Amino acid sequence: MIIVLKNGTTPEQIKAFEDKLQSQHRVKVNIWQGVESTVLGLIGDTHQIDIESIGAQPIVESVKRVQEPYKKANRKFHPDDTVITLPGGQQIGGGIFHIMAGPCSVECESQIIEVAERVKAAGATFLRGGAFKPRTSPYSFQGLHAQGLELLRKAREKTGMPIVTEIMRESHIDMFEDVDIIQVGARNMQNFELLKELGKTKKPILLKRGLSSTIEELLMIAEYIMAGGNDNVILCERGIRTFETSMRNTLDISAVPMLKKKSHLPVIVDPSHAAGIPWMVEPLAMAALAAGADGLMIEVHNDPSHALSDGAQSLTPDQFDHVAHHVFAARDALSHLAD
Amino acid sequence: MIIVLKNGTTPEQIKAFEDKLQSQHRVKVNIWQGVESTVLGLIGDTHQIDIESIGAQPIVESVKRVQEPYKKANRKFHPDDTVITLPGGQQIGGGIFHIMAGPCSVECESQIIEVAERVKAAGATFLRGGAFKPRTSPYSFQGLHAQGLELLRKAREKTGMPIVTEIMRESHIDMFEDVDIIQVGARNMQNFELLKELGKTKKPILLKRGLSSTIEELLMIAEYIMAGGNDNVILCERGIRTFETSMRNTLDISAVPMLKKKSHLPVIVDPSHAAGIPWMVEPLAMAALAAGADGLMIEVHNDPSHALSDGAQSLTPDQFDHVAHHVFAARDALSHLAD
Amino acid sequence: MIIVLKNGTTPEQIKAFEDKLQSQHRVKVNIWQGVESTVLGLIGDTHQIDIESIGAQPIVESVKRVQEPYKKANRKFHPDDTVITLPGGQQIGGGIFHIMAGPCSVECESQIIEVAERVKAAGATFLRGGAFKPRTSPYSFQGLHAQGLELLRKAREKTGMPIVTEIMRESHIDMFEDVDIIQVGARNMQNFELLKELGKTKKPILLKRGLSSTIEELLMIAEYIMAGGNDNVILCERGIRTFETSMRNTLDISAVPMLKKKSHLPVIVDPSHAAGIPWMVEPLAMAALAAGADGLMIEVHNDPSHALSDGAQSLTPDQFDHVAHHVFAARDALSHLAD
Amino acid sequence: MIIVLKNGTTPEQIKAFEDKLQSQHRVKVNIWQGVESTVLGLIGDTHQIDIESIGAQPIVESVKRVQEPYKKANRKFHPDDTVITLPGGQQIGGGIFHIMAGPCSVECESQIIEVAERVKAAGATFLRGGAFKPRTSPYSFQGLHAQGLELLRKAREKTGMPIVTEIMRESHIDMFEDVDIIQVGARNMQNFELLKELGKTKKPILLKRGLSSTIEELLMIAEYIMAGGNDNVILCERGIRTFETSMRNTLDISAVPMLKKKSHLPVIVDPSHAAGIPWMVEPLAMAALAAGADGLMIEVHNDPSHALSDGAQSLTPDQFDHVAHHVFAARDALSHLAD
Repeated sequence: MIIVLKNGTTPEQIKAFEDKLQSQHRVKVNIWQGVESTVLGLIGDTHQIDIESIGAQPIVESVKRVQEPYKKANRKFHPDDTVITLPGGQQIGGGIFHIMAGPCSVECESQIIEVAERVKAAGATFLRGGAFKPRTSPYSFQGLHAQGLELLRKAREKTGMPIVTEIMRESHIDMFEDVDIIQVGARNMQNFELLKELGKTKKPILLKRGLSSTIEELLMIAEYIMAGGNDNVILCERGIRTFETSMRNTLDISAVPMLKKKSHLPVIVDPSHAAGIPWMVEPLAMAALAAGADGLMIEVHNDPSHALSDGAQSLTPDQFDHVAHHVFAARDALSHLAD
Repeated sequence: MIIVLKNGTTPEQIKAFEDKLQSQHRVKVNIWQGVESTVLGLIGDTHQIDIESIGAQPIVESVKRVQEPYKKANRKFHPDDTVITLPGGQQIGGGIFHIMAGPCSVECESQIIEVAERVKAAGATFLRGGAFKPRTSPYSFQGLHAQGLELLRKAREKTGMPIVTEIMRESHIDMFEDVDIIQVGARNMQNFELLKELGKTKKPILLKRGLSSTIEELLMIAEYIMAGGNDNVILCERGIRTFETSMRNTLDISAVPMLKKKSHLPVIVDPSHAAGIPWMVEPLAMAALAAGADGLMIEVHNDPSHALSDGAQSLTPDQFDHVAHHVFAARDALSHLAD
Repeated sequence: MIIVLKNGTTPEQIKAFEDKLQSQHRVKVNIWQGVESTVLGLIGDTHQIDIESIGAQPIVESVKRVQEPYKKANRKFHPDDTVITLPGGQQIGGGIFHIMAGPCSVECESQIIEVAERVKAAGATFLRGGAFKPRTSPYSFQGLHAQGLELLRKAREKTGMPIVTEIMRESHIDMFEDVDIIQVGARNMQNFELLKELGKTKKPILLKRGLSSTIEELLMIAEYIMAGGNDNVILCERGIRTFETSMRNTLDISAVPMLKKKSHLPVIVDPSHAAGIPWMVEPLAMAALAAGADGLMIEVHNDPSHALSDGAQSLTPDQFDHVAHHVFAARDALSHLAD
Repeated sequence: MIIVLKNGTTPEQIKAFEDKLQSQHRVKVNIWQGVESTVLGLIGDTHQIDIESIGAQPIVESVKRVQEPYKKANRKFHPDDTVITLPGGQQIGGGIFHIMAGPCSVECESQIIEVAERVKAAGATFLRGGAFKPRTSPYSFQGLHAQGLELLRKAREKTGMPIVTEIMRESHIDMFEDVDIIQVGARNMQNFELLKELGKTKKPILLKRGLSSTIEELLMIAEYIMAGGNDNVILCERGIRTFETSMRNTLDISAVPMLKKKSHLPVIVDPSHAAGIPWMVEPLAMAALAAGADGLMIEVHNDPSHALSDGAQSLTPDQFDHVAHHVFAARDALSHLAD
């Protein structure tokens, strides 16, 4: 951590600040006198120091981190890829490529089972589907709730696919006991109360990047869950908000290599929410694969034009067959190159 | 609502779609044949129609709203300013200008009471202070929780100022029974489960705009609360996330006149969080006043350099005296002009 | 074009506006009376109508386009891919994949020739290099100017590779007579005076997207050049400005399929400028290939640590060998899939 | 300047790098060994060091500036406000508040003279008007060019108001000999060739911030002009590009106090281009005044609905009367407070 002091700070003030830093944070302080400014360098473990509190000192002009503020999610301290193993034996991370697929919302038994069977046949290895839905309009369909979870379990029984579904409030955690992967949506990425509760479980958490979250903020949220005791975090890039208006969001493809460089956690990409345009799922899925993602999450609906939510961006099962076929063939072709 | 159909749509498909729209949504459908495209116009009350579901129809190229998707928060249907009256008689909206002030976090009894007395003396009419704190690092101070609420009540008793404090999970609503204004923070702006519960109360809700929320999205969130039955919503602009790096966020000053044009709800501005820089509070507060805001929310700490959170952006009580004096004098001077 | 009129517009005003639109723009006007608003639909060729002038009418509430405002660059009117053929026979577009490579700045004869020979050996088909450099600091190296162009020609003579180099002012066009592809940089994307002059030539123009330009704006700039008479435009995505700070810019990978959907022009990607990080060139190059780009532009320097500009993002020739080998192998592997 | 070295850098490499820095840049190098990284601090005048070239060294992990990269535009080195004095005696900066007003484009003699007389009567002190127009569509009106400049001169003769008009290419500088203030538009803010030529003149330059330019970049552009020898630069905030869609751009009101803190140059605000909405000019103008701007630039057209450009955002002379009256009254009222 590097702290630039204001012009005119006295030697006594510097000494007092140095003493305080050393005693409070057990760091060594290196002082260095420039022409226009005095700079302090903190040596030691600084990731728990509150950078804002440093910045609030009257003698401080600015403060910058050299180390990342996260540690458990940081590849520097855990060089190997995290591989998350589910009770059923499925593994995420470490070079295995998954497609998680299914409808935005679970709507009825026949719908979720039909979609599950179709996406499984096409090669998907996880079934996604929403029982609780965050909707921007209070007048839109809000999900089947407990019944939706029940239908997901039925689809799992029928197909053997583990299920991924979104949680929206911490008081629901018991209801999600039997869910294989709990998803935290982009809009709840900084719902810290929910994150704290998820940190107390051992469930794999699929953590979606918020619409305006930096990569560092996403990793700090992973750190939140991990600091609570749950190391099973999967990161998901799903598009960020920019000035571009021809698509719903802008897929930040660079986030894939950057997250994999900075962290050891698995990284998946959601091309359905990124652009919000069905025909764009395939090129974005291909790009995600080529950039090194550990998997994809794709919305598939048996009848998009009657979907109760997100129909506009869902693929039909036939369209998904095509995308999955192309993506898996590319995965095989590209993996041979690496040999 | 205007729906552009894809090239090559047959007259039969158009007829079927028209029939469906009319029966499902009780709107009149106007069809009009262009050179390159067929366009449908929906006449009637379209604010409850799910625009995504329309966009999901295979024959639809694009769909745009003419009317706003919110109704209760819309000035078109409620031309007069909403004025919120608290049980103690204080009013927000309708031309009265308030300053809400206090520390980021409640830290101890002497702190909150000292700050409360100082900001009251300077003209502040509400006391703000956090008992539950959303913090981006799991290693930072998270608030005093129930004890913090207790200390706020003590400060209210001592000073007579109503209190404003942030809620972070829906299961806490009972604890906030005695709070005068419940704040929803920027990071929870789209925590829909929390919003639904707040819609069931009659408490005034101070709703902060999310870092990447559009003005329309903010109004849709107000609609969420209002659709639940609670009309007492105060909107708060607190800076949005942009590419600019010299400040924490970019205060969207245009949001003030735009929100007041589109909605009848009171609008306040938080210059402390907007820039995150103490010396910038005054010019931004002045700009907010001049742009027509109904009030300000300002962070004040009796000892910013020892604050447990947000010290870097807090004013000292002396600095706040200066800002409040200048802002109130300007309010008086400008209000004479309007005569 | 769809025009929503203000509430309270009189039938006489509507009639007068309708007459004016029909006579000035030779379009048919369709009027349709909603509950809250009157909407006009313009049928005919509206791409030359100035949307701002329509919006300026006192009776107009809002105006939206249904058709795109560009025509020559629009795939709707030119369904087939544009393939640009250079005098030397090289073709760009239509399924051929190129890598353009070379240093940010031309610095001396040995440098440009060494780099040219190395990138050619690795499979690059065009040599890039800057003679005129846009630099954000007036204190930075500004390029070798005419001498730089001369050295590029020497490198072309030596290697047979056509050259791509950036123009910065319209008075230089004569100097660029002998350049194979003229590049317009991101910062000059809306230098309309330069664009007008380039429209009068027949040179292939490599047009870089501005840091905050929408896809539609980029296509309007292509239209500028094409409207002047020069159809040889190559579009280049090179990263946009967002809130993310861990990389210089955010590569908008979705722009590749979107530009190819909306336009018939070739689309290349510059992964060097996008992130500004050498190790990220490879994953972004792979993503661009997978998303359907027609080529790449990559910065290569024989000695990045002594480069006079952009060294921080340049690959060494050895690193470029590795990237080019991987990308070409992937291109071959993926092209077999399409069979 | 603070340089973090990569892990594993050898003492010999550090020594060599230190020697190079000291000899090339005449700075003192301070070395400091952390637990995970070695950090170098450069002491001396670093504003001319190319930060990218430092970052390109193979042993460098990251590099950050402590000092600003601009010097002539920096208030640290010029604590007093710059006041620009025109040959006619008018002064800009230093507490004087101006309104520059006029049409987007000069269209004909009667138009420019009518507008000039009206805005002068309302208190405007400069006449703005475009003779060369940057238009996003090649099919839109591009300005009257030389004839437009001639008409501006006529309006100046008639009213005595100095004129402000935009230059679009460096070869036109001679034509602008007689213009009082030369404007550089947002889209040409990084047209470095134009900036270099303007740096050779002594003309006051009104420099508009680019749509996605940071405050530091704007000041670097001012530095460009000043480094060329022309210190007469006026900065103009005119809205930046963000995700918000209800307005054309987002006025960055915080830029006003930030620019005035970091620089000694005058700062004006253009509320017309910021939002692109006539009714929003007044609240934004008031906010700019309250935030400390040195003036405003406002578009006024005698007949907006027939304007050849930007009619949608222009005020009528009557509307301008109202805005100017309110703003000047507020200026007087607020200036008394400061007494």
